[in-house]
Amino acid sequence: MINVERLWSRIEELSGIGKTADNGVTRFSYTREEYEANELVKRYMQQAGLEVYYDAVGNLIGSKSGNKDLPTILLGSHIDTVPNGGKFDGSLGVLTAIEVMESLQDQQILLDHPVKVIAFKDEEGSRFGFGMIGSLAVAGNLNSKALERKDKDGFSIRDALIEYGYDPENIQVAQMTDVKMYLELHIEQGKVLENNEAPVGIVTGIAGPLWLKFKLTGEAEHAGATPMGQRKDPLVAASLIIAEIEKLANQYEDAVATVGTLSLTPGGVNVIPGSVEFTIDLRDISEQVRGRLEKEIRDFATTIVSERKIDLTIEELQRVAPVICSQQIQETIQQSISELDYPVVSLPSGAGHDAMQFKDAFPVGMIFVRSKDGISHNPKEFTAKEDVKAGAEVMLRTLIHLDKS
Amino acid sequence: MINVERLWSRIEELSGIGKTADNGVTRFSYTREEYEANELVKRYMQQAGLEVYYDAVGNLIGSKSGNKDLPTILLGSHIDTVPNGGKFDGSLGVLTAIEVMESLQDQQILLDHPVKVIAFKDEEGSRFGFGMIGSLAVAGNLNSKALERKDKDGFSIRDALIEYGYDPENIQVAQMTDVKMYLELHIEQGKVLENNEAPVGIVTGIAGPLWLKFKLTGEAEHAGATPMGQRKDPLVAASLIIAEIEKLANQYEDAVATVGTLSLTPGGVNVIPGSVEFTIDLRDISEQVRGRLEKEIRDFATTIVSERKIDLTIEELQRVAPVICSQQIQETIQQSISELDYPVVSLPSGAGHDAMQFKDAFPVGMIFVRSKDGISHNPKEFTAKEDVKAGAEVMLRTLIHLDKS
Repeated sequence: MINVERLWSRIEELSGIGKTADNGVTRFSYTREEYEANELVKRYMQQAGLEVYYDAVGNLIGSKSGNKDLPTILLGSHIDTVPNGGKFDGSLGVLTAIEVMESLQDQQILLDHPVKVIAFKDEEGSRFGFGMIGSLAVAGNLNSKALERKDKDGFSIRDALIEYGYDPENIQVAQMTDVKMYLELHIEQGKVLENNEAPVGIVTGIAGPLWLKFKLTGEAEHAGATPMGQRKDPLVAASLIIAEIEKLANQYEDAVATVGTLSLTPGGVNVIPGSVEFTIDLRDISEQVRGRLEKEIRDFATTIVSERKIDLTIEELQRVAPVICSQQIQETIQQSISELDYPVVSLPSGAGHDAMQFKDAFPVGMIFVRSKDGISHNPKEFTAKEDVKAGAEVMLRTLIHLDKS
Repeated sequence: MINVERLWSRIEELSGIGKTADNGVTRFSYTREEYEANELVKRYMQQAGLEVYYDAVGNLIGSKSGNKDLPTILLGSHIDTVPNGGKFDGSLGVLTAIEVMESLQDQQILLDHPVKVIAFKDEEGSRFGFGMIGSLAVAGNLNSKALERKDKDGFSIRDALIEYGYDPENIQVAQMTDVKMYLELHIEQGKVLENNEAPVGIVTGIAGPLWLKFKLTGEAEHAGATPMGQRKDPLVAASLIIAEIEKLANQYEDAVATVGTLSLTPGGVNVIPGSVEFTIDLRDISEQVRGRLEKEIRDFATTIVSERKIDLTIEELQRVAPVICSQQIQETIQQSISELDYPVVSLPSGAGHDAMQFKDAFPVGMIFVRSKDGISHNPKEFTAKEDVKAGAEVMLRTLIHLDKS
């Protein structure tokens, strides 16, 4: 029932917006590229028979009414990317949801429940160091303090909303109620499905990301004329901490800890750095394990900076609790996979997803699609066309089954 | 004989060009700010009775003929700065040399030797990661390969020469011959004079800087979905190396080693870095000690990257041999200091200076002036007015004595 050629050509076409020299994609939120991408996706939604609008924070929503007066089923993902990311992360979920709706239209199948397909605003957080803006708003949890987060040019989320014609004082109207459940399809971004030779997987839960920003301040001095013993070098202190973070994370089976950004000032070959900033991304499916790891990192850093008379400030950028996926949705996905004769594989998600934001609002479920070599957030990210087809078929069946539940 | 008020007001006036928010100075070579600063210094030189011209690479030269047909005495320093540097580093040497020449003019003293005062192009190397462009050219050692060095916008020294009207094929005419000696006054940028309560010091030699650029390449992957054991994280490898560099340098009495720049790509909070570049500045007054330290760092880095399957390339940006100052010039400076009743202090220079480039060309000497708290390459860099006066008096006497030698 799925038209995989249509879906595949849309993946290609969408990846042309924000294309990088490496054949990757860079699309940050509230930029010209992201706006163009949204307008293209809007046309796909219209072709699928959806009524399309932007909500109060710029989420793109395609809406289809149901046969009965029932709560809405939400399908969604995001179309923003990390710097020089791939063409499947996020985009595949949005485009597959549209393909599912267009296939239903092609077959003249009408569902009982209303369905909304959402392309969420800024899942990755690459621009403002703060992700999941759109899904937070739909969950009713985007607070106005978060809007003060700034990008590296000092431009805040609030400024970006205003630039694109949204009212920062009106974001709460993006909240959705009367929702039956949320279902998201996403590439795995790991190697579990590949190792199990399964095109599709059932997600059991999502490890929550905790993002911290460390700022170390020492003393910028002449690299030639300042003896080693008289230095307050924040980069050496940062290096000791970064090396230790890896060791501490290695103690736990599933925990991951990553320093993905680091910048220093003033930045001369012959100048001892005066200050260093870096971020830490900490994840585990257990909130308790993540908390223990966080404490160990903070304690180690505090010891290092006090020994070295370096000043340290730690800012919490976001703290998302892990989420368990709905048992009912997991079982329905499993049923669909079995009907299609694919292997049944269940796995947790190490990556965060918009689905996490709906933890306390309504049931959530996720379908994973195999990623080649587990690579993502990279131009080499790839999912084969037959796996894209398998994912869309599973999602279509899952939606039809859930509609009857 | 020195007009310290005139000199002091010129230090202030010059520091207004390229002034930063922190009250520091940023003046990179071949920029509008540096050009404006050169034009201001040109006017000072003209007031001091010098004939002024720019040479083939943009060194600003003020020339005074002597009573006799003798080799030229060179006085000089630089007026470019590190990012957010101070107002004394380099500028004090140029402005003091001009003040010395203007004082001689005021007193109607004519020297036997011709004198040239030079404001050298780009001593710091902050823009192109390659310093001492002007003094290399005067020494006849600026080769055309060096002109390919690029700034962070991909603009080369060659491009900069062309932009400012110089011919990159003609740089060899900047070489000076028939030179008697080179004398430079500079702030100490350390605390030896302060600890000895001496306003002025005699430089015995200059530790040579060796600059290396390390590039580590791993694999950029998703921070949440890539288990710790499956990563090739170049930032963790870089951190281990940076922490070890400090330990290795600490083994030696005088050696210093600094990582002053570090950048990574792609730079997302939730992306494992794919590559990291950083520079190392290594110095010692003994070339042998510096070489031993370099080898230890290279060996350690090679071990770390091979354990972690990270790719490493090391580029040598510059390698300057340490220099011993002329015994005759040292003795003449000491005589002048004694005549003025200042304490006699001799010390090596940990920082590199333009003087180093003349090692194989003609005798060099340097006068150091006390810096408050030894701070430099920083807006807090400061030398008191009475120390500026002492430095200028010592330089004037030294020049008069050397002229008779």
